[in-house]
Amino acid sequence: MARECWGYAAFDHSGTMKPFRFTRRKCRSEDICFEVKYCGICHTDLHQIKDDWKELPATYPMVPGHEVVGIVCEVGRDVKTFKPGDRIGVGCIVNSCGQCDHCKRHLEQYCERKFVWTYNDKDIYVDGNITYGGYSTLMVVPERYALKIPEALPLDAAAPLLCAGVTVYSPMKHYEMEKGGKNFGVIGLGGLGFMAAKFAKAFGMRITVISTSPSKEQEARHALHADHFVVSTDPKQMKAAEKSLDFIIDTVSAEHSMDQYLPLLRTNGKIILVGIPSKPLEVSAFNLHAARRCVGGSLIGGIRETQEMLDFCGKHHIFCKIELIPIGYVNEAMVRLVKSDVKYRFVIDVAASTPPEFRPN
Amino acid sequence: MARECWGYAAFDHSGTMKPFRFTRRKCRSEDICFEVKYCGICHTDLHQIKDDWKELPATYPMVPGHEVVGIVCEVGRDVKTFKPGDRIGVGCIVNSCGQCDHCKRHLEQYCERKFVWTYNDKDIYVDGNITYGGYSTLMVVPERYALKIPEALPLDAAAPLLCAGVTVYSPMKHYEMEKGGKNFGVIGLGGLGFMAAKFAKAFGMRITVISTSPSKEQEARHALHADHFVVSTDPKQMKAAEKSLDFIIDTVSAEHSMDQYLPLLRTNGKIILVGIPSKPLEVSAFNLHAARRCVGGSLIGGIRETQEMLDFCGKHHIFCKIELIPIGYVNEAMVRLVKSDVKYRFVIDVAASTPPEFRPN
Repeated sequence: MARECWGYAAFDHSGTMKPFRFTRRKCRSEDICFEVKYCGICHTDLHQIKDDWKELPATYPMVPGHEVVGIVCEVGRDVKTFKPGDRIGVGCIVNSCGQCDHCKRHLEQYCERKFVWTYNDKDIYVDGNITYGGYSTLMVVPERYALKIPEALPLDAAAPLLCAGVTVYSPMKHYEMEKGGKNFGVIGLGGLGFMAAKFAKAFGMRITVISTSPSKEQEARHALHADHFVVSTDPKQMKAAEKSLDFIIDTVSAEHSMDQYLPLLRTNGKIILVGIPSKPLEVSAFNLHAARRCVGGSLIGGIRETQEMLDFCGKHHIFCKIELIPIGYVNEAMVRLVKSDVKYRFVIDVAASTPPEFRPN
Repeated sequence: MARECWGYAAFDHSGTMKPFRFTRRKCRSEDICFEVKYCGICHTDLHQIKDDWKELPATYPMVPGHEVVGIVCEVGRDVKTFKPGDRIGVGCIVNSCGQCDHCKRHLEQYCERKFVWTYNDKDIYVDGNITYGGYSTLMVVPERYALKIPEALPLDAAAPLLCAGVTVYSPMKHYEMEKGGKNFGVIGLGGLGFMAAKFAKAFGMRITVISTSPSKEQEARHALHADHFVVSTDPKQMKAAEKSLDFIIDTVSAEHSMDQYLPLLRTNGKIILVGIPSKPLEVSAFNLHAARRCVGGSLIGGIRETQEMLDFCGKHHIFCKIELIPIGYVNEAMVRLVKSDVKYRFVIDVAASTPPEFRPN
């Protein structure tokens, strides 16, 4: 039977969120229902509630949240790998065709028909209804899109792994950075940048953090063991760092030019964008040609890869530094997010901040 | 002893070329002196005589030409691999440090100190004098930067291989396109596009030619055996070709947006720019992310790779379709080049159009 659910939703382009009641579908044979404990706030949530992207237009009310962790409360009769009481995670994807070459190769994020976003999308494979994310008390998800959260990880700090974590892990694996020994740069020290630096260190790379904020140097060097710190607004420092890096992960979602960063790459160097600026990037031919550089993009990660990343994090004790907030604080959190005023990810303590009358039984 | 030389030079930003007399240095122990027979006209020549690129500012008088073929007339005492009477070619590079990692790995085009362009550069490794290109009767070049032109190739039609040929061959090898079986696209059907299609066919790829000119379809299909032809200004044709290509070589040097072409690439697809537009390209995050695409650049090729390409062309009988012109026609040729009015490369018949009094003895 369908379940009553409570969460926070945006109702128009202002992006202001307020409490919202809705129902979750009943648990089908392949579904898992779980009580949401924590949900990370991703920069994407902010773009989506404000309808910033023409490629992903907003449907309101919109319940954001795609870094969701919780505890299983019900499983359908065909579910094999989860049982009530298990720790569970859901990232950006809650469905895909499952039949195409990409789905078969565990690249659901590039599903040839279409994958279904965890919120602000229509689940064409179930009932065509709008999907609602993890800023809410309950979720229902097919087993195929459910992740296991290793016991070694704190549940709250594991939430950001489901988007921020896999978004940087996936291209790092794709470009074989786990072989180590290379010079790695990360632009931007938010949630994604923090995770990228953690993975880079675990992979055995030398790390350069590139940031507009000189104030982040100490933390970069001490908490993240960065070998170098470059203030990107200082032309002298940028000049000195030219041709020093094999890889750069660019986490910046604000408008920016690639031409600023391309000279930092050595011959055959690659800069992989994982942020999603609304406006096109500028890329000059000379900056590409001069050292056979390339600019790539990468979209989250597949389900199998997300599980692999979670297991890697469990083994190496990698998780995000977070600021835990009650759900009623989400609007203030969004204002602070715009100013990058968070170290390094807001995580909503959904279970603890749900009014008693809306708590799942 | 230094030799008198005659050629055509540009004298100011107008780019208008006129006859010009100068001297070539004497043949040092490691040098080869050769009589220029033919020289291709590259789009780069046009940019340089007009001082279009701030990255490579013009020094006048400028004698262009870096697709140079001829016959050896003198060799220094340490030269081992050439003798008078041999066919010889020179491309874009006439010197480099020879000591750095890149030079040692035969990647002189990415020399860490600097490589010396065949014209409009200073040869810091010899005498610091300005280099003059192949729109002239004689050249002197160190043995290391000299190429052998296979007997199987016509000498005039081999000239464009030295820049246009290797400029597309090098990235095609770097991205392992010679393995064949992939869907290959080429944007622009000038000299570079023609060569790229020839190599793609020899490598066993399926070819899509993407052009603004519907008039080029018949030639693309018949002369180049293209499997598909897409008119890039026709949104319907572009839509139908979405996600169909594994690789694209983009030969366009005019200002353009990458966003127009990125959707043509499949997941993990790569577009490699080899043209040199003066203004930055636009690249949207969504177009990169949606299919883990990347945009790369590539600069000519190393000397060893250029020789490999020439030998490959000799074996597979690959060369450029050309229009042979007298040297006095270069200014008209440049006007036609702007309009892409050439199939597919102008080649100057230097030897035949030199006034008798300036012909080398």
